[in-house]
Amino acid sequence: MAITVVGSVAFDTVETPAGRKERCLAGAATYFSLAASFFTDVRIIAVVGEDFGTAEQAVFDAHKIDTTGIQRAPGKTFFWQGSYLDSLNEAKTLRTDLNVFAGFEPKIPEAYRDSDFLFLANIDPVLQRRVREATPNAKLVAGDTMNYWIKDHKPALLEVLKGLDILLINDTETRMLAGNSNLVMAARAVMEMGPRMLVVKHGEYGATLFHKATAGAQESRTFKAPAFPLEQVTDPTGAGDSFAGGFFGYLASQRELTPGAFRRAMFYGSVMGSFTVERFGTERLQQLTRKEIDQRFQLFRELTHLD
Amino acid sequence: MAITVVGSVAFDTVETPAGRKERCLAGAATYFSLAASFFTDVRIIAVVGEDFGTAEQAVFDAHKIDTTGIQRAPGKTFFWQGSYLDSLNEAKTLRTDLNVFAGFEPKIPEAYRDSDFLFLANIDPVLQRRVREATPNAKLVAGDTMNYWIKDHKPALLEVLKGLDILLINDTETRMLAGNSNLVMAARAVMEMGPRMLVVKHGEYGATLFHKATAGAQESRTFKAPAFPLEQVTDPTGAGDSFAGGFFGYLASQRELTPGAFRRAMFYGSVMGSFTVERFGTERLQQLTRKEIDQRFQLFRELTHLD
Repeated sequence: MAITVVGSVAFDTVETPAGRKERCLAGAATYFSLAASFFTDVRIIAVVGEDFGTAEQAVFDAHKIDTTGIQRAPGKTFFWQGSYLDSLNEAKTLRTDLNVFAGFEPKIPEAYRDSDFLFLANIDPVLQRRVREATPNAKLVAGDTMNYWIKDHKPALLEVLKGLDILLINDTETRMLAGNSNLVMAARAVMEMGPRMLVVKHGEYGATLFHKATAGAQESRTFKAPAFPLEQVTDPTGAGDSFAGGFFGYLASQRELTPGAFRRAMFYGSVMGSFTVERFGTERLQQLTRKEIDQRFQLFRELTHLD
Repeated sequence: MAITVVGSVAFDTVETPAGRKERCLAGAATYFSLAASFFTDVRIIAVVGEDFGTAEQAVFDAHKIDTTGIQRAPGKTFFWQGSYLDSLNEAKTLRTDLNVFAGFEPKIPEAYRDSDFLFLANIDPVLQRRVREATPNAKLVAGDTMNYWIKDHKPALLEVLKGLDILLINDTETRMLAGNSNLVMAARAVMEMGPRMLVVKHGEYGATLFHKATAGAQESRTFKAPAFPLEQVTDPTGAGDSFAGGFFGYLASQRELTPGAFRRAMFYGSVMGSFTVERFGTERLQQLTRKEIDQRFQLFRELTHLD
């Protein structure tokens, strides 16, 4: 099954304890697309400026990502500059230039209409909703958001949540969205807002998949995937988007969405996130092979399985 | 195999979002002993005051814990008062009365001499070392410590670490002890100080077992156990000590200490911690059955295993 993803393509300048890198090819939709491309066909909707050249296009082409939906606008591509010098767990934003992203009006190419899977990466919920409404036939819809939209654009975000099957957010966002400091209770409250599944990303502690309560054993339907114990995190940017790409990409590659498929998807999500942070920007994803992915999947199994 | 544990027996008064409880039977050695008693014979070394009565003694007796090594001293038992109203992840200490604990001189009863397993719960490293030196024949020695000893008594603590096979501490303590914010690198540095294994407890995110690097695949020798996703944490006190009791108690019950035994021990540790926090003090451990423990062990497997 093909996935359509809408979100940002960007250039990032980041500084971390491992060094500094200028203008990496980045953005949520870029990380997502590259990660998902190892599993299935990916079609991207985004906007870039005149500084998006043949080198950047070549990265998408090399991964057979359909870029018909990338609009080219006069001006510069979205630019973000951040620092992880204080903490690898939280970026300090030094500069955000929306550039062409400020006037982004997502348009869905005709060729994308048969995508069965839709991913709404972290952008203005008004745009997420518009894309969701324009793709009524999508069979599985997942999305991301961030503290900024939860805090200041909650009504619009709540409309988006009604149209999602799966929401992927982190611990802080889950607690903030629900207004409850207990993660299990917060997760339940978030699922009452729409999504029937919630993936809570815990950064270096992995991720948890929650299912909406149904009759029967609630507890056993929760599933935990570990994070890989890394000796060096070069650049944490994009770990969550890569998780989403691995998770959703793997699901889209499956004939049937069994409980086992969701469990394996959680592992593949963690695997893709663990690769991304090994180098700056999307460098590691650009060089990755499916064989390396499956080898690390096996390591993740050994990390957690009793026998 | 029998375990000897040295540490504190205390009365705790705690307040949490779930309520307030006066003078619960508590202390690291109490939590550890009760948790371990479901798996093997436990012998405790501690000191109590005149306020430790027949009701408290009965708790140990009901779990067949050998209390020959509990000294009774004139005065009151160690008392701690804490609050979790601000955060369930960190206790705010409101009062600490060392009482009889101030003059504690651990003595090892003759009947304890054949214990093959020794656990040094969190007390002054000078005392931990003394007990360690008095039990040269122990086959497996594990221990705990806390930020206070790491910060202000590091030379004495480093002497203790040389005599440990396994150290069990939390994330913050691991980073503080090693002076390194990357957990994997910090874990390696801590194991260079003595212990050949390190269990890092992550609170609501479970725990990780690290092995000292040897030739061959380092990564696959790391093992992660989840924490149980609890809807209500009544009182977090003693979760770490209960983890240690389940972990070490299960190991002591095994004929052979295979890699699989250590993995299962990590799960049993998490299981025991998850029960403890369900009620105040040691209430839940006092009422627990082995059947409930094994049922939750199975739930933990379902939480993490792909099939």
